[in-house]
Amino acid sequence: MHASLFLIPVTLGETSVEQVLPTYNKEIILNIKYFIVENIRSARRFLKKVDTNIDIDTLTFFELNKHTNLEEIDNYLQPITNGFHIGIISEAGCPAIADPGSDIVAIAQRKNYKVVPLVGPSSILLSLMASGFNGQGFAFHGYLPVDGAERIRKIKQLEHLIHKEDQTQIFIETPYRNQKLVEDIVKNCTPSTKLCIAMNITCENEYIKTLPVKEWEKKLPDMAKQLCIFLLYK
Amino acid sequence: MHASLFLIPVTLGETSVEQVLPTYNKEIILNIKYFIVENIRSARRFLKKVDTNIDIDTLTFFELNKHTNLEEIDNYLQPITNGFHIGIISEAGCPAIADPGSDIVAIAQRKNYKVVPLVGPSSILLSLMASGFNGQGFAFHGYLPVDGAERIRKIKQLEHLIHKEDQTQIFIETPYRNQKLVEDIVKNCTPSTKLCIAMNITCENEYIKTLPVKEWEKKLPDMAKQLCIFLLYK
Repeated sequence: MHASLFLIPVTLGETSVEQVLPTYNKEIILNIKYFIVENIRSARRFLKKVDTNIDIDTLTFFELNKHTNLEEIDNYLQPITNGFHIGIISEAGCPAIADPGSDIVAIAQRKNYKVVPLVGPSSILLSLMASGFNGQGFAFHGYLPVDGAERIRKIKQLEHLIHKEDQTQIFIETPYRNQKLVEDIVKNCTPSTKLCIAMNITCENEYIKTLPVKEWEKKLPDMAKQLCIFLLYK
Repeated sequence: MHASLFLIPVTLGETSVEQVLPTYNKEIILNIKYFIVENIRSARRFLKKVDTNIDIDTLTFFELNKHTNLEEIDNYLQPITNGFHIGIISEAGCPAIADPGSDIVAIAQRKNYKVVPLVGPSSILLSLMASGFNGQGFAFHGYLPVDGAERIRKIKQLEHLIHKEDQTQIFIETPYRNQKLVEDIVKNCTPSTKLCIAMNITCENEYIKTLPVKEWEKKLPDMAKQLCIFLLYK
């Protein structure tokens, strides 16, 4: 196989590898000696989880995160020109989705390298499947603004798009602000607008529930410190 | 485990099950006797591919497609109330994404049934990962309008959104119109706008390539009858 840049998804939380990753991913991983990773420690931990016999000390890791000097990124791809595969591993889920990995993929595309995405868990896609919302038109917005007034404006804009574009609106929040975000949604959206709260996807305590905003008011789950993703639709 | 509605992804094209589905999915599938499917013949073929020893004749299939009477859908979920799992299987990729499955999921959510999404291949997500485009903000639009003038207006609107919302724009086309769509994009977008053409994802002849629109002009691949997905970004 041509030397390629493989995009390697990881488990979400404490799930087993067998639950969320095809066995093919392991075959590919065992053929890679160079990895570009968001965090070296958790990448090593993931690789050990994939195969306890893996010899970590024979592998080379390049760290790619917000502290990385952008000029170094080019060098990270050097092994491909020497005929070696490279793997990208992010912190959770699929690389280059909601994380900095896409910069390196963009460079690989510009250099005409082969880029191969592997299948794995994405909280965006899994929550959309289970929400019952429109899967033929949807948008992912990442994090909403933190500021109160700006955030409420954004929530109202997303609610408007549901109707105008017939589009499911998907967004995330840092765990300690989940509760506040949902309270803002409940307070500011039309009571009939539907909100899906998806929590700990693929984990033992997975929770995915869709209700009209007005019905959430009195039965919000405890979302503090939980990995959540939120979806709005009509 | 509580009786649940499982969303069961299938392979895209002639790929092996091991390449794109976790082994856990097979475990789940072998515990399900009731399936809601887009097409019974291809669902049977998929189940045989997952396990050649599966006893198809002991399974019950309900067909869900554009010919299905919406009033019948309610009955399809009856087995859950009797304590049996149900599986939804679509024609390709992930159920309830870009197919009619989300109607039944919406009913299950309204009835407060447990809905469990399983991991599998999604051409939307895999192409986005490999495109090098923004994965922190993106929108999927399904099919663009067929009509010439309306289609060009839509292409220009999507190109505008790339800049205004810093959002990757993703869309599909029926195979025999792929070539024409890309020609329309090349003719109507700014030369520096980037187009990713992703074809036969997860299959042997997978092709995922990003180039500025002006560079595509003279090297378009043959997309006739191929499964393609298209992404635009700046």
